[in-house]
Amino acid sequence: LSEIKLFIALIHYPVINKAGEVITSAITGIDLHDIARLSKTYGIKRFFVVTPLKDQAELVKRLTEHWVTGAGASYNPDRKKALELIRVAKDYSNVVSEVRKFAGMTPETVVTCANKRNDAIGYPEFKQKLKNGRPYILNFGTAWGLSGEWIDNADYVLEPVYGITGYNHLSVRSAASIIIDRLLHDN
Amino acid sequence: LSEIKLFIALIHYPVINKAGEVITSAITGIDLHDIARLSKTYGIKRFFVVTPLKDQAELVKRLTEHWVTGAGASYNPDRKKALELIRVAKDYSNVVSEVRKFAGMTPETVVTCANKRNDAIGYPEFKQKLKNGRPYILNFGTAWGLSGEWIDNADYVLEPVYGITGYNHLSVRSAASIIIDRLLHDN
Repeated sequence: LSEIKLFIALIHYPVINKAGEVITSAITGIDLHDIARLSKTYGIKRFFVVTPLKDQAELVKRLTEHWVTGAGASYNPDRKKALELIRVAKDYSNVVSEVRKFAGMTPETVVTCANKRNDAIGYPEFKQKLKNGRPYILNFGTAWGLSGEWIDNADYVLEPVYGITGYNHLSVRSAASIIIDRLLHDN
Repeated sequence: LSEIKLFIALIHYPVINKAGEVITSAITGIDLHDIARLSKTYGIKRFFVVTPLKDQAELVKRLTEHWVTGAGASYNPDRKKALELIRVAKDYSNVVSEVRKFAGMTPETVVTCANKRNDAIGYPEFKQKLKNGRPYILNFGTAWGLSGEWIDNADYVLEPVYGITGYNHLSVRSAASIIIDRLLHDN
């Protein structure tokens, strides 16, 4: 278990809007809290928040500082332990190089996608890969999801979370929670 | 699968605050959206939001009406399909009687709890119970969780979601997502 090197990146660009256009989405505070708490629960070492916008990066820093070193740290130490896993990155290449430094090996990128694709890998298959000691960065898209080009460029596409009804519109908070539990629970 | 009769109730009273005191918590809009979308994905027929406060019940009604019959319905029909599963209840006895009417049988109450208890039942065990055709209402607590008395009075207590680190402070949105996936995925 100590060999598992899974990292999370929450992507705010390039993602698509309702019309399918590539946009930069806004930071949502609750995404940071929920996914940081999830990361802490499952032993994920870093949760990267990726945005090219300077003011949005500042917002993430202010929010995390409040909980990690500010008034929030003594008010809620459990929240501090979660939010200190957050790192802001203006560019995905920064995420890759931080993970490379942290894990001592070049990571592979795994994306999540709400649409069915023939080249997608399943949860048991990726769970098996995680045991090979290689670092993986699991990308989650905000807004209406990661851009098609981003998905095509990834090393692996993970199967969508199918519930049982064919309806497939979970929040990124719910999808991340379910996916991380499927990958890391009972290892 | 068609026999499974699982309902969700999100409880705002009686829950505890950080100091362990019994309180009524405020409605959080994002809880309603995330858990409604989760419910729709996994075929849950009703998502009950339980609050004794009249103005808070009104807030839930306004929010759901916006998406179910108001401007939101045409803007985002997928959201409508999720939020129309929401029912507001001022009292848990209303939830029980609505489920009894809906399912034609008296439901049992299953609570979630972040603390370890000797009488808790595991996920495979509850998954098995779900196949017996009886209706179950799964209760989630807001704030710092359901009151001790509420938990003691339930028919079953479900095991906490253990990640892998001992840290156990997921948001109710994450916990509900993981628990529902564990119970209903791959049935």
